[in-house]
Amino acid sequence: MVKVGIIGASGYSGGELIRLLLRHPLAELMYLTADKYADLEVEEVFPNLQGQIDGIFKKYSRDEAKSNCEIFFVALPHGLSQKIVQELYNGENKIIDLGADFRLKESFLYQEWYGFEKEPNKLIEKAVYGLPELNREKIKKSKLVANPGCYPTSAILALAPLVKNKLIKEDSININAQSGVSGAGRKLEASNLFAQRTESVTCYKPGKHQHIPEIEQELSDLAGARIKISFVPHLVPMSRGIFSTVFSKLKDKIDEDDLKTEYLNFYKNEPFVEILPTGKYPETKNVTGTNNCQLQIAIDQRSNQVIVFSVIDNLVKGASGQAVQNMNVMLGCNELTAINTSPVFP
Amino acid sequence: MVKVGIIGASGYSGGELIRLLLRHPLAELMYLTADKYADLEVEEVFPNLQGQIDGIFKKYSRDEAKSNCEIFFVALPHGLSQKIVQELYNGENKIIDLGADFRLKESFLYQEWYGFEKEPNKLIEKAVYGLPELNREKIKKSKLVANPGCYPTSAILALAPLVKNKLIKEDSININAQSGVSGAGRKLEASNLFAQRTESVTCYKPGKHQHIPEIEQELSDLAGARIKISFVPHLVPMSRGIFSTVFSKLKDKIDEDDLKTEYLNFYKNEPFVEILPTGKYPETKNVTGTNNCQLQIAIDQRSNQVIVFSVIDNLVKGASGQAVQNMNVMLGCNELTAINTSPVFP
Amino acid sequence: MVKVGIIGASGYSGGELIRLLLRHPLAELMYLTADKYADLEVEEVFPNLQGQIDGIFKKYSRDEAKSNCEIFFVALPHGLSQKIVQELYNGENKIIDLGADFRLKESFLYQEWYGFEKEPNKLIEKAVYGLPELNREKIKKSKLVANPGCYPTSAILALAPLVKNKLIKEDSININAQSGVSGAGRKLEASNLFAQRTESVTCYKPGKHQHIPEIEQELSDLAGARIKISFVPHLVPMSRGIFSTVFSKLKDKIDEDDLKTEYLNFYKNEPFVEILPTGKYPETKNVTGTNNCQLQIAIDQRSNQVIVFSVIDNLVKGASGQAVQNMNVMLGCNELTAINTSPVFP
Amino acid sequence: MVKVGIIGASGYSGGELIRLLLRHPLAELMYLTADKYADLEVEEVFPNLQGQIDGIFKKYSRDEAKSNCEIFFVALPHGLSQKIVQELYNGENKIIDLGADFRLKESFLYQEWYGFEKEPNKLIEKAVYGLPELNREKIKKSKLVANPGCYPTSAILALAPLVKNKLIKEDSININAQSGVSGAGRKLEASNLFAQRTESVTCYKPGKHQHIPEIEQELSDLAGARIKISFVPHLVPMSRGIFSTVFSKLKDKIDEDDLKTEYLNFYKNEPFVEILPTGKYPETKNVTGTNNCQLQIAIDQRSNQVIVFSVIDNLVKGASGQAVQNMNVMLGCNELTAINTSPVFP
Repeated sequence: MVKVGIIGASGYSGGELIRLLLRHPLAELMYLTADKYADLEVEEVFPNLQGQIDGIFKKYSRDEAKSNCEIFFVALPHGLSQKIVQELYNGENKIIDLGADFRLKESFLYQEWYGFEKEPNKLIEKAVYGLPELNREKIKKSKLVANPGCYPTSAILALAPLVKNKLIKEDSININAQSGVSGAGRKLEASNLFAQRTESVTCYKPGKHQHIPEIEQELSDLAGARIKISFVPHLVPMSRGIFSTVFSKLKDKIDEDDLKTEYLNFYKNEPFVEILPTGKYPETKNVTGTNNCQLQIAIDQRSNQVIVFSVIDNLVKGASGQAVQNMNVMLGCNELTAINTSPVFP
Repeated sequence: MVKVGIIGASGYSGGELIRLLLRHPLAELMYLTADKYADLEVEEVFPNLQGQIDGIFKKYSRDEAKSNCEIFFVALPHGLSQKIVQELYNGENKIIDLGADFRLKESFLYQEWYGFEKEPNKLIEKAVYGLPELNREKIKKSKLVANPGCYPTSAILALAPLVKNKLIKEDSININAQSGVSGAGRKLEASNLFAQRTESVTCYKPGKHQHIPEIEQELSDLAGARIKISFVPHLVPMSRGIFSTVFSKLKDKIDEDDLKTEYLNFYKNEPFVEILPTGKYPETKNVTGTNNCQLQIAIDQRSNQVIVFSVIDNLVKGASGQAVQNMNVMLGCNELTAINTSPVFP
Repeated sequence: MVKVGIIGASGYSGGELIRLLLRHPLAELMYLTADKYADLEVEEVFPNLQGQIDGIFKKYSRDEAKSNCEIFFVALPHGLSQKIVQELYNGENKIIDLGADFRLKESFLYQEWYGFEKEPNKLIEKAVYGLPELNREKIKKSKLVANPGCYPTSAILALAPLVKNKLIKEDSININAQSGVSGAGRKLEASNLFAQRTESVTCYKPGKHQHIPEIEQELSDLAGARIKISFVPHLVPMSRGIFSTVFSKLKDKIDEDDLKTEYLNFYKNEPFVEILPTGKYPETKNVTGTNNCQLQIAIDQRSNQVIVFSVIDNLVKGASGQAVQNMNVMLGCNELTAINTSPVFP
Repeated sequence: MVKVGIIGASGYSGGELIRLLLRHPLAELMYLTADKYADLEVEEVFPNLQGQIDGIFKKYSRDEAKSNCEIFFVALPHGLSQKIVQELYNGENKIIDLGADFRLKESFLYQEWYGFEKEPNKLIEKAVYGLPELNREKIKKSKLVANPGCYPTSAILALAPLVKNKLIKEDSININAQSGVSGAGRKLEASNLFAQRTESVTCYKPGKHQHIPEIEQELSDLAGARIKISFVPHLVPMSRGIFSTVFSKLKDKIDEDDLKTEYLNFYKNEPFVEILPTGKYPETKNVTGTNNCQLQIAIDQRSNQVIVFSVIDNLVKGASGQAVQNMNVMLGCNELTAINTSPVFP
């Protein structure tokens, strides 16, 4: 058994971590912090766990945290985790940060895209970008994992085979993403009220979303070339799920079947990535509550573009499920442990 | 391992059975029939199982069924299972019928409420009504379980402590139930189209729903007295879940806390029934995809009534999850096996 | 043309008033107040009115109000309108209060059900309960109308013919109401977030909702006898609409067709009340955005009860549409003016 | 008064035509056909019109049609209207065809994109593409209007100022469209069931949708150059609305404000097109039930692309509302007649 702490456990990602880890045979939930809900029962804050968990949220204390846990999940708002992670890190324990603070290698990007000052620290060099499909070996050896953002997970998995194999023009990528409302978190904003959100689609931050540099950094690494993307996120009336539609220009003509084979090969050992059979398109519902990513490709011959469709559950593969997957990789246990589930239908 | 067959496996209940049994450590799915989809891959019919199951639907054959399976789930439309169950039953194998054909003890009720003729057969005497919270010991010894309907599960669990303890007037029960649209099954009807159902509530069959005699039969048994109910089902814009609000007149004044204690005692050993703390009300979302039932009570002093609130997932505790629970009871394994899950939030 | 002011115009009811009055041929919107949004453009606060209205919200000033308007709609939170209405009232102008402050004749009820102290004032005697189907003649002559609550509108219209004709037992009324989330107003509460509300049904304040004394007062008046009800409101995942299911015990047996005739007669001159043909049940969607109420009745012979189904749009017939209807009655113009619309389908 | 017939009046578009024309001061609904529902009351088929319309659906008869009506709306499935329109056309009456049969100038495209054979006929030369914002003068003089498709309306209004002013590269247009489920019509398909559609996003026919040649034809006309697009439609869990996100490469750098000015000028006299203020993005809800189109633009400097956002109600501006607008233009009456409404909020 591994002693687990979750710092910032009362948001949607925190709740998913608790839900998943409750049934993880190796994890023992020792320490859950939530300053805002300190001393409240966990089941008071998460009605889905009513009767299933004994325990209260604590106010964060560095000493209490370090003395109780071997592995930490940090699920704090952007800008807050950099300090906590530095406090907790001791080179022996393991830390998985679900925030953005250790994802970007270039510090100045935080000011530009997130609007907060990144404190200089050496941990950034130790942090591994926690997308197991690309970085599994590094994650195995790492003590600090920067868990990917939800949109980046969906977009990078969609594009990795194209970028890695240099099949597309580096400056031609248009990403359209549609997200469920849970992506906005538990924050109270009028625009997230049921009555205002139901039966409506809108977009936000076109070309300005803070996940853009993250996607570009990882794809550029993979390509060995500078990649720029255009990215527009939309909000659709559902709770969970991201559907990404990614256009890019092919360098050369390629047959749809051949491209499919590239994808099947690229992901052939991946338990959580499913390339759909021809004629089927991903649906967010088919991954809800699971750590799965479904992909489909189409070649639009009239525009010589490839279009990739990618779906994940933003709170599972896009956050907490992937964090548990990373923990599994770090612990060397079966990667599917506690996240091997099927969604309900319908 | 137990060899399992599902007869009529392509409806919503069939799909849930497959989903749950896929991860049941004792169950081996040997034989799935769906005449309409014969020879199709299971994952073709259930997109949520894409990549997770190998196997095709077969056309039902009695001999093939009997030679391959030790336990059967029958998930056929009302009126069709009586014949199949008689064919399959041999006194050694186990059968769990998710339809209505073996629920009602009085044959004439089928004509009156379901509109089909019940063939005379002796199996009806052997069938046990599969609500483990009331009939666990009988289910253990039974070879044929009549799995309860969705509304009856919700209503009977709400009323059992009141009826058993003779706290309410037998002719005073009003049941208001609100169901998600999946309750209508996979049938194609214009009124179940997304565009017509979203943002709308309606009711159907007030006082005429076929689950009425089932609820009355079981409550009357429990009370040792003839109980009549008034029942109105509603359709609300969600996929899954039943929320039942049950009014009844108290025979004598009783304190809300005392009544709560009755409920807590009545269900104290039940892993799937949760009496909520005072001040909290059930939400269907908090049981979605799980086998749980959440209950709350309120005493309305102005009308001297008790009001009970009860939620379940109509396809899990209201159908397939309860069927798996019954299988677990019949097999003598841990009752929680394969159905011990928490819903997602949000 | 009549000069109109709306005091408290930035909530959902205020928005509906603006939307409806913008196209009212006799109304001139002169003065819209919203302290919280003072100096903001109306279309900034109501995106549905983008490009359709010029004007800003003002901070409320008694003098400015009185010098600019002949008729006022007051759409303030409960407890706040009593003072404002007293300030504005001069015996010549007309006031329609959408809040509760002038609905209840007995002052002590405000403390008991609303939790605020009712200031003694003589205006309460002048206030007419603004349900035109019952009080049209009084409304015509009134200068101060207390516009009914949403649940009361739905419940009273359902029960009026039964109560007036003394067909039911006075202490046997159970009202189950299901409301869309807009009923909670524009307030920011986590439980009203889209992600938490979608795909879920719950209830709140069973037997304790502040609309109970309002319903009882009006029904008791109509019956000439003390009527007590049991009332449970539910929250369903839709924006608008109330579906009320009302059970009550019949004093004597009555044929369903005869009872239907009573309803048809009772409402025969009412432009906004529609008794549905036999076999059809109301759907909230069929009144969305309109001032219509749809009713259906059923007799449950097994329990000797009548069950009435009633739907309205909580923000139109349940609030702002009815307020405009009251204005039309007070002005003596065609009662349908500006509120004669059909809902969309689907 | 003008005598109006609707041929194929029982689908969603037909229902919207009836709803809108019922309150059109110049229109008299004389003849409504629906072979499938012949002899049924209109309110039987459209529950939103309960109590608001007297009349039955008829089986189509050419002679009856021609002798009763001066203007026809034809709302038949693709491929069926070509014959009916030829029968009805006499050079004096007016015909607005909501189907595709008279939209494409090149006959062979019907075989390629729709899969039906276009009968040779000379009427195609007389048909005017009914987008009033581009073709108002032609529509005024026309007797036969081909009413645009829903996606084309949204996409062409988004792109017209760019294409007309030659600001973008002709081969660089990517259109992402998200549609409500009503776009699939009243057809019974399992994938349109509420339980399967709710909480899910998917795509269909990427690069293969039959609206592609329509969009290309109209944009090419406007550009005076051959334009090719890439188009991916998505299905989102709402009833109505289309949200289109359109990417294209700018030929030259242009300032966002300057581009906005181009849009404002282009649409300055258009009553149904609203360019949103900077910082606001369209929401489908803000046009639901109305004939409005809301547009916003953004320049993504990193990719030198312009991104245009466009929303309409697919059944109003995308079908029946635009048809009524075309009728108004053809009759020479105020173009806003019967379609000058605001959506509800929320």
